[in-house]
Amino acid sequence: MGQYLLCGALIENIKGHEVSSLPQADIQADPVNPAIRLASLASADMASVEAMIEDRMASATQLIPETAAYLVAAGGKRIRPLITVAAARTLGYEGHAHIALAAAVEFIHSATLLHDDVTNQSRLRRGKGPANAIWGNAHSVLVGDFLFARAFMLMVDAGSMDALHVLSRTAAVIAEGEVRQLAAMRNIAITRAEYMSIIDAKTAALFSAAAHVSPILNGSCKTVEAALETHGRELGLAFQLVDDVLDYGGLTTDLGKNTGDDFREGKVTLPVVLAVEAADDTERAFWNRVIARGEQTSIDFDHAVTLLKTHGALDATLHAARHHAAAAVKALDAVPRNEWSEALAALAEFMVERAY
Amino acid sequence: MGQYLLCGALIENIKGHEVSSLPQADIQADPVNPAIRLASLASADMASVEAMIEDRMASATQLIPETAAYLVAAGGKRIRPLITVAAARTLGYEGHAHIALAAAVEFIHSATLLHDDVTNQSRLRRGKGPANAIWGNAHSVLVGDFLFARAFMLMVDAGSMDALHVLSRTAAVIAEGEVRQLAAMRNIAITRAEYMSIIDAKTAALFSAAAHVSPILNGSCKTVEAALETHGRELGLAFQLVDDVLDYGGLTTDLGKNTGDDFREGKVTLPVVLAVEAADDTERAFWNRVIARGEQTSIDFDHAVTLLKTHGALDATLHAARHHAAAAVKALDAVPRNEWSEALAALAEFMVERAY
Repeated sequence: MGQYLLCGALIENIKGHEVSSLPQADIQADPVNPAIRLASLASADMASVEAMIEDRMASATQLIPETAAYLVAAGGKRIRPLITVAAARTLGYEGHAHIALAAAVEFIHSATLLHDDVTNQSRLRRGKGPANAIWGNAHSVLVGDFLFARAFMLMVDAGSMDALHVLSRTAAVIAEGEVRQLAAMRNIAITRAEYMSIIDAKTAALFSAAAHVSPILNGSCKTVEAALETHGRELGLAFQLVDDVLDYGGLTTDLGKNTGDDFREGKVTLPVVLAVEAADDTERAFWNRVIARGEQTSIDFDHAVTLLKTHGALDATLHAARHHAAAAVKALDAVPRNEWSEALAALAEFMVERAY
Repeated sequence: MGQYLLCGALIENIKGHEVSSLPQADIQADPVNPAIRLASLASADMASVEAMIEDRMASATQLIPETAAYLVAAGGKRIRPLITVAAARTLGYEGHAHIALAAAVEFIHSATLLHDDVTNQSRLRRGKGPANAIWGNAHSVLVGDFLFARAFMLMVDAGSMDALHVLSRTAAVIAEGEVRQLAAMRNIAITRAEYMSIIDAKTAALFSAAAHVSPILNGSCKTVEAALETHGRELGLAFQLVDDVLDYGGLTTDLGKNTGDDFREGKVTLPVVLAVEAADDTERAFWNRVIARGEQTSIDFDHAVTLLKTHGALDATLHAARHHAAAAVKALDAVPRNEWSEALAALAEFMVERAY
């Protein structure tokens, strides 16, 4: 009851904390990448998170710390633990358990990346991989398992059974999302709804959990819990859709490094779903050949980008991303307005801006 | 203090519950496999465990339930959950949380098996696997992850943070053990101590945890906790060593099905460690060729078995297994003596008998 009233009071106090309260002008006026600004605001907590990550990837078993360090320590953006920390701080949480949960979230993310490597290598190198790449597979699986187990040990340290419930459920949902993505591979018939449901599980669930565990630790009311869960989920959807666009070079079509991976792997993302929906017979034959049958020549990627642009598929995907980022910002209405929640809101909008 | 006294009283009451109190004559007089006898004693609880396993492997994501069912439901001996149940019952535990933990233990075991498949396939099929075998790899990784996550959800249901601590630590230790086993692959220079340390992590840790979580749930004293932890660990070591012997046909050398896998994979187990220790130059050259370099012909396995027998390596391994089984029985001294603890003791002795 007290919690409910507190929630009501909070919502009263922060009415008007709308999408428009953080106009693009503000963001453009700030030369600093909001992810970096948030990291700077959270620097003390993030130093604790880093120390904990380093401590918990330790193992007397040779190769584990090296592999884990390569993945976990080297240049990760730490965006998920940042969300956990910012969500805890925006609520005025005064404990320390958010550090362990932030590290746990990063470990789950890293374990997922390692296991993704295996499924990606399986697809790309079927039967023709060099021996050490496949030896590497076994290693990726086991070190991923190690990080996954250590993530749960961190959650035990945090001491919240409710947070454990959220994160263990999330880990199961991520695995389901990955299986569904595998099943949707090279399938140009999947619908927009099916695609959104896959990325909701595969990507957005962990962003959502990262934000959700903090109000749980803080003992916040259900309204605040739901608001941060929604914030994280919408942020995650925006993040994935922007990634999908960037894999085709973004709107400026900078087809340099880091583009074309999805295309070459036959991963059907929203831009392709939309272009296939709008395709004439010739175009459909093209998508069938390059994605469904996986028969690609060196000029096919450029042609794919042309088709995506012809049908406005990149624009439409970014439009969807902007919609989800706005929903992420809107969800913060139920959360105290302070420098932390404003940094979270700015981060959500930056997610989309990075594609322009 | 009360717990300590209770522990003291328990130990007083059951003095004389020695290895010799369950003589081989009793076991041989009983025509029923002790694993089956224990399963029959535990049939009500095990039916609940089965129902929970079936319930928690459910997923709306196609392929997950089939894969999980293939592995989890089809003919598993359920030896680990049986240990959890028997340990709970021997202590007079009256709650229900042991069912969820027993299912969780089986899920961890199943996830490990699925991920083992990947590492085994990597070794056996380097670069020459058929596409669907490698597609299967990706699937094995992800369904394993799903089962692993569901295991932690089951632990959350059980509601014991201490049990969660034990099982999450165990999962990390298993992964470490698997990595070390991978590193020891084809290495005929590993010592007996190194090998025992690997199987302690890879196999015995989960048996240990399976037994350990029950006194935790029951709120038993530390002496009983330690006793059951030791019981499980020693049982697990015995189990693995007997498996190692059976892979070379056991003492009767029934070289039919299910033998020679370790040999062909280049997995160095205790019989090989012992035979290499005792090898002359010619024999060492043989082990070097067939294990270290992996160059095997159709007659090599038979010759390997001959060498193991020449040096008494199978006998010595079984002797070690018998020693660990006896230690498992001895550990039960600190546990109330009843039909449950007697069934656990009989199971430990049967572990070794099955190799004869």
